[in-house]
Amino acid sequence: MPARDIYHNAVTHALVKAGWQITHDPFRLQWGTKDMYVDLGAEELVAAEQQGQKIAVEIKSFIGPSEIEDLRNALGQFILYRTILEATEPERMLYLAIRDATYFAIFEEPVGQLLVQQQHLRLIVFSPDQEEVVQWIP
Amino acid sequence: MPARDIYHNAVTHALVKAGWQITHDPFRLQWGTKDMYVDLGAEELVAAEQQGQKIAVEIKSFIGPSEIEDLRNALGQFILYRTILEATEPERMLYLAIRDATYFAIFEEPVGQLLVQQQHLRLIVFSPDQEEVVQWIP
Repeated sequence: MPARDIYHNAVTHALVKAGWQITHDPFRLQWGTKDMYVDLGAEELVAAEQQGQKIAVEIKSFIGPSEIEDLRNALGQFILYRTILEATEPERMLYLAIRDATYFAIFEEPVGQLLVQQQHLRLIVFSPDQEEVVQWIP
Repeated sequence: MPARDIYHNAVTHALVKAGWQITHDPFRLQWGTKDMYVDLGAEELVAAEQQGQKIAVEIKSFIGPSEIEDLRNALGQFILYRTILEATEPERMLYLAIRDATYFAIFEEPVGQLLVQQQHLRLIVFSPDQEEVVQWIP
């Protein structure tokens, strides 16, 4: 059983408060014989819906010893998931959910800014204490 | 001192045999205050030149316990490096160097094919025994 990201519940609570209905938790992505849930322990993926809009959310804690390594890992997973999602369910938008502290430490830095702009990363910035979404970067 | 990928020498030898001149080993990439060499131990990056054509090569062994995890990590690093390279030295093309065995196991599989096509991954497939390039996927 893959381990849940430690902020999993904070994010699902924040989404519900923001009017989203959680439709899949975990949300399983598969391509060919590869099941991301099995192969990557991807219990961090959830799916939600609001007024016909569908999203998938990758929850990442960024609590490793190296910020840039956390960033690389989150990016690799995001690009992998987004590529599969665009091929299987293109109307569902993928978001990366990160803490407000992570946003300030990494995504307001030059390397984070560059990635957000050039790779069109969609972000949900949440407060883990308030369990609320503080910013959408669509 | 970051550890070199175990196939580092095989790839640089293969490039030289194919007529490339190794110009930077390691090749250091930097953006803002982030030095990829320091932050990610990126000694796996080399730069080469031939007849005015410039490339950077990320060497990845894919010897971890999970193929899909290796793929995710290689992808995250590749997208990070390529994004920085496009902003700093757009004429230099980034390639991912992988063994022939890795190519067959992962990049001829549906998930690898999807990524190569949709993310426009450029690959150098090499034989670690012959120390030769067996395929370019530009």
